Amino acid sequence: MSEKRPLILVTNDDGVTSKGICALVEAVSEFGEVIVVAPDKPQSGMGHAVTIGRILRLNEVQFPIQTAKAYSTTGTPVDCVKLAIYDVLGGRVPDLLVSGINHGSNSSINVIYSGTMSAAVEGAVEGIPSIGFSLLDHDAEADFEGSKVTVQRVVQSALANGIPKGTCLNVNIPKVPAAEIKGIKICRQAKAFWEEAFVKREDPSGAPYYWLTGEFNNQDKGQDTDEWALGNNYVSIVPVHYDMTAHHAIAVLNEWDLG
Amino acid sequence: MSEKRPLILVTNDDGVTSKGICALVEAVSEFGEVIVVAPDKPQSGMGHAVTIGRILRLNEVQFPIQTAKAYSTTGTPVDCVKLAIYDVLGGRVPDLLVSGINHGSNSSINVIYSGTMSAAVEGAVEGIPSIGFSLLDHDAEADFEGSKVTVQRVVQSALANGIPKGTCLNVNIPKVPAAEIKGIKICRQAKAFWEEAFVKREDPSGAPYYWLTGEFNNQDKGQDTDEWALGNNYVSIVPVHYDMTAHHAIAVLNEWDLG
Repeated sequence: MSEKRPLILVTNDDGVTSKGICALVEAVSEFGEVIVVAPDKPQSGMGHAVTIGRILRLNEVQFPIQTAKAYSTTGTPVDCVKLAIYDVLGGRVPDLLVSGINHGSNSSINVIYSGTMSAAVEGAVEGIPSIGFSLLDHDAEADFEGSKVTVQRVVQSALANGIPKGTCLNVNIPKVPAAEIKGIKICRQAKAFWEEAFVKREDPSGAPYYWLTGEFNNQDKGQDTDEWALGNNYVSIVPVHYDMTAHHAIAVLNEWDLG
Repeated sequence: MSEKRPLILVTNDDGVTSKGICALVEAVSEFGEVIVVAPDKPQSGMGHAVTIGRILRLNEVQFPIQTAKAYSTTGTPVDCVKLAIYDVLGGRVPDLLVSGINHGSNSSINVIYSGTMSAAVEGAVEGIPSIGFSLLDHDAEADFEGSKVTVQRVVQSALANGIPKGTCLNVNIPKVPAAEIKGIKICRQAKAFWEEAFVKREDPSGAPYYWLTGEFNNQDKGQDTDEWALGNNYVSIVPVHYDMTAHHAIAVLNEWDLG
């Protein structure tokens, strides 16, 4: 009796034609049957958005790696996960969901804005072992070759050990040659923030418009954080969950006189 | 010397013209100076999305309550908070951010999909005491009169006590007459989920399209949850934070042989 090959669902937020998702599919193909369901256009910064009040389209597309069946949707990364589970996979439950490889960091507070990580969180909500991968390089032509080794090591461990129930993994990879990566560290999310800034311009008619920008500000010097690991050439893994309850604050609020 | 009136920033995800935000402004106006910065159209389910790669517009608008200055943006609820802080408020830091009153529940897992709550989380990230309010009634014409009492009680307590650092409050109000509300309970987020479903249709040319729907499934019978409180006619308050780290899983992952 042969063992069944794992079913691996792949998605991302940079879109189905991005270089990062291609590298991810290349890296995980040896571990099982791969099905790609990803946005048809960039969906960076979409967080945990779902499409309400508008329709979604789903189309089979040609993927550069022939062994992977691939579909694009007009929706967000979270929509992609939901459509995959409900429609594309025809009732089969994936053994693993991988999202990425994102072009750019999803460390620290970026996890709440990230479409890549929200797809992984949605996978965890669905009970699927899920991992988001990000390389600290925003460039559309970023070099993902070195990242594949990290992806394979983490995926192999996840398939062997399972992922703690109710959590998914946020894996960030420093932008250095693979030989310079010192190892993999399990971390907590650093307490860092974006200080927002906007570039304000005038359109040809004189009306103002804004581009969101911002500056990353990390005041958290803890050596157990993802920022510390990445700054010291380690791959960071943060286990992420979707219980947003600040449990420690419950007792404080119970002191309020709310009647 | 007269005490300075608190500055209260109001936003939502149903749009600046919705009935819920009007009720919220009415409820909080007695506590301070109110400035509204809200989306120009419904942004339900937008989660923590921010606008990247597209421009934002910001316009002053007439608000039904004359004492409140109001602005609409073309962005998401989180964009609204960022634009308010960066541009509209001209360097002033709000003493309080309130978001809502949402038309519909943001209890349990809904917190991660909710634009209303993501605006409050963004406020907390910015260090502003922030509260999201939701009424368990999706109707555009929902009756928010009874909710105002709850809003006022919670806002008064928050202004008096402050909100624990790094957290915001997720306040949900049952859809019953105010006289039937039994009180306010501090809760944890219930472990409940949406089982996704899509309505699949064909457009006039025969091509398929999908509407996201879903069924809410609560298997968590804990009496300390928001679902229990709401089901028993209590207002629920869940303290929410943005540290997504599953701290309990760090030790488990450190057992993995990741090198």
